[in-house]
Amino acid sequence: MAAAYPSRLIFSISPKPTSSPKTLISPSSFPPFSLLKSFSFFSSSTSENPSFSPNSISTHSGALSSPPPILETPSKIDVNPPKGTRDFPPEDMRLRTWLFNNFRDVSQLFGFEEVDYPVLESEALFVRKAGEEIKDQLYCFEDRGNRRVALRPELTPSLARLVIQKGYAHPEFDSHIFFFRKSISLPIKWFAIGQCWRYERMTRGRRREHYQWNMDIIGVPEVMAEAELLSAIITFFKRVGITAADVGFKVSSRKVLQDVLRSHNVPEDLFARVCIIIDKMGKISVEEIKKDLSSTGMSDQSIDELLEVLSMKSLTELEERLGDAGQAVAELKQLFSLAEKFGYSEWIQFDASVVRGLAYYTGIVFEGFDRERKLRAICGGGRYDRLLSTFGGDDIPACGFGFGDAVIIELLKEKNLLPELDLNIENIVCSLDLELQGAAALVASTLRQKGQSVDLVLENKPLKWVFKRATRINARRLILIGKTEWEKSTVAVKILSTGEQYEISLQELD
Amino acid sequence: MAAAYPSRLIFSISPKPTSSPKTLISPSSFPPFSLLKSFSFFSSSTSENPSFSPNSISTHSGALSSPPPILETPSKIDVNPPKGTRDFPPEDMRLRTWLFNNFRDVSQLFGFEEVDYPVLESEALFVRKAGEEIKDQLYCFEDRGNRRVALRPELTPSLARLVIQKGYAHPEFDSHIFFFRKSISLPIKWFAIGQCWRYERMTRGRRREHYQWNMDIIGVPEVMAEAELLSAIITFFKRVGITAADVGFKVSSRKVLQDVLRSHNVPEDLFARVCIIIDKMGKISVEEIKKDLSSTGMSDQSIDELLEVLSMKSLTELEERLGDAGQAVAELKQLFSLAEKFGYSEWIQFDASVVRGLAYYTGIVFEGFDRERKLRAICGGGRYDRLLSTFGGDDIPACGFGFGDAVIIELLKEKNLLPELDLNIENIVCSLDLELQGAAALVASTLRQKGQSVDLVLENKPLKWVFKRATRINARRLILIGKTEWEKSTVAVKILSTGEQYEISLQELD
Repeated sequence: MAAAYPSRLIFSISPKPTSSPKTLISPSSFPPFSLLKSFSFFSSSTSENPSFSPNSISTHSGALSSPPPILETPSKIDVNPPKGTRDFPPEDMRLRTWLFNNFRDVSQLFGFEEVDYPVLESEALFVRKAGEEIKDQLYCFEDRGNRRVALRPELTPSLARLVIQKGYAHPEFDSHIFFFRKSISLPIKWFAIGQCWRYERMTRGRRREHYQWNMDIIGVPEVMAEAELLSAIITFFKRVGITAADVGFKVSSRKVLQDVLRSHNVPEDLFARVCIIIDKMGKISVEEIKKDLSSTGMSDQSIDELLEVLSMKSLTELEERLGDAGQAVAELKQLFSLAEKFGYSEWIQFDASVVRGLAYYTGIVFEGFDRERKLRAICGGGRYDRLLSTFGGDDIPACGFGFGDAVIIELLKEKNLLPELDLNIENIVCSLDLELQGAAALVASTLRQKGQSVDLVLENKPLKWVFKRATRINARRLILIGKTEWEKSTVAVKILSTGEQYEISLQELD
Repeated sequence: MAAAYPSRLIFSISPKPTSSPKTLISPSSFPPFSLLKSFSFFSSSTSENPSFSPNSISTHSGALSSPPPILETPSKIDVNPPKGTRDFPPEDMRLRTWLFNNFRDVSQLFGFEEVDYPVLESEALFVRKAGEEIKDQLYCFEDRGNRRVALRPELTPSLARLVIQKGYAHPEFDSHIFFFRKSISLPIKWFAIGQCWRYERMTRGRRREHYQWNMDIIGVPEVMAEAELLSAIITFFKRVGITAADVGFKVSSRKVLQDVLRSHNVPEDLFARVCIIIDKMGKISVEEIKKDLSSTGMSDQSIDELLEVLSMKSLTELEERLGDAGQAVAELKQLFSLAEKFGYSEWIQFDASVVRGLAYYTGIVFEGFDRERKLRAICGGGRYDRLLSTFGGDDIPACGFGFGDAVIIELLKEKNLLPELDLNIENIVCSLDLELQGAAALVASTLRQKGQSVDLVLENKPLKWVFKRATRINARRLILIGKTEWEKSTVAVKILSTGEQYEISLQELD
């Protein structure tokens, strides 16, 4: 298995992948630097602190001259977010919003409903015994009430918890009422976009948080569910400009492993542990894998056969080996047949080495990867028919995927597909006179009532400053409130792209 | 001061305020219960687990008959989210999305840019020494690397941190480059919608997390900034149907307190502590307030005069007492004059008792309250000109507000203003034959490419079941793929509201 990070949880290596230079305000949209020097906010640009100079503030009205003190004596704080976490200043936030809106739009095209869960959950929800990396890196702690809690490393266990919670009508109440009020009809199709956390010593420069898009289908045992999930991810890729030449999916089934283990009489309760070991292929040496497998009690012969099967890249070859009686081959063949009908055959390929790093997968598993193999897995998922029963619920067939916000941004950057996301405020409204600030407020309110965005200039500023600001926010119109015009209930309008200027009454302004 | 919770941070008393019965699927949209019994998913409704019966699953294809085991033996988990936290199942999520979209739309109408910060911050960012409730309830812990961290109780300190970080160009680099790349031009107008946390023993049934909408203006010393913020909140209220008859704002200035303290020679460094004590009025007895004030070293006479001034509800009365030389009165008068021009005078009233519970406010403070006085403060904010310098930045004038997601939902419920937010998926697509599932997938893909949402039926289900599902998801059209039609490349369409049925070719379907 080539991907370095095995689980559904995909974090970034680079410290700030969403910060794209393309989303920053372009310097060329500013006037020459010398021009800016004439404005107070830009006058101390050679000092440490060009824009927040105290001088630029003390020229204003006296409101700041003697504010009440607050208790502490000033002490420098660390201005960086905690290690491994990100701030989202406006340009990064625009990119995040763009990405999340694409996740959301695709999910809704597929008829999925959005849900969310607490970012803080009981530690018990995530503690499985199969040796997953995700458990070792759990961001867990004891709360002030001595409860073991964790910042969620993934969303699926919370989904399972909520499904069990919502699915049960309390027996002592009238089941007719509770049937409608409390339980959910199957199949459930839910999506979520949530922040996930892990704790890792920062030696590898990896982040401690990322956002993850999940789509899950609960209640459908048929492979059609996996096919639908893949279709959703591919729809997303197409929307953002990524093609089958850029990205592919490796698909396999854990039932392949199961068939091999069964044929060698390996005890069933070793299954998850073996999967987690196998998932480390490509990250640790084959010798270490073999040693780890040996330690489970598997014979050398079983191990060799297992590794041989896992190296297969052809479904025909697999079928010859396992025979066509098993579910593994039948389900995989069905998925490839459905992919053809959905129209995304070129995106997917069989690869027996894919097992994914989470203990709970039971059937088909898949993993999105960039074809240049420069990046880690972009997304991953599969079937987890036993997770709900592990939590004490009934067995319900389920499948889903996780799609992180980090690797996709790296890929989009790589492919030059990051969108230009400039700030766009329709109007800038400014009074030419302190006296007319109330009038400007009225004009701003009127436009906002009509659904137009307005940056209202809150201070008494020279016109040059206002033009700079208009440029920075990409305003379409500048609306000036002057004394002569206002006496006639009109305002001056300048269309900034064309330079066109006219006078218009407040009523006609829209 | 009447509001029970003094700070910008407003949590809910009721355990699940966003769960509105109105947003649930109405029972009347279902057929009579007896009808449902004929479908497998509903057949075991008298058992503990009506929708997730194992029987309903084993009737399907054999995919589940023998999935691989996972390691653990089943053990019931607690299906509830951790104490004081919420899940957002679809109906609650729709309400949250509706609320947040209103926050977002209003912020953007006012030309504010969205930002976000880590939910986990250094504890040091929130530890102030003024005795705030927010500090005692900090959800803090030691991480696995022995660092003191906290789940943020509010957003403003992170904003201040980020502004300082972005504002400084590193002096050893070319300042021309860094001027454009690293610093932000003032004024900054940012908004954020983020989850905030507090730790409190759950004796009062209060929640430990809520979402908070913040809007902040950095770099404007004039009262026009506060007026603009109030205008934004009032615009939000109007959008969701709340009037000045439902909600009002109590407005005062911390400079009122400052003037009184100065006239009694109370040391300036006691200011924040006195504010925090005063903010407890209405929650603890006047005797306790007096005792707490005494403990700061204030004389009985100062305390009596302070309490007398704080009881004033008229600006004229205040002016008579303090004289018109001070900033407190001048700024408040200006705010009321601007409110008139903005057109929201009827929403605001002077009330000297408002001080707000956060240490860092320095000037005008305000608080939104329901006029029936049934609920806690809806939102609150004010000017905090010293916060950035406390963190080691320069003095920059700033003001902002916080608006929680809990009390507003209680108020909307109270006023019958909660929206009906049904699930709405445009199409339900279903094949009448297992063989035709691929065709159904093709039809679904085609519609989705045209921007239409589709719930694709992933299993082979009886037609009655499909109609139920169509009703549940409020589908506009049912599209059936039958053998005869598909051979002619057509599908059967049923408009669900009218019952109209027709056959149409795939190309013409849009």
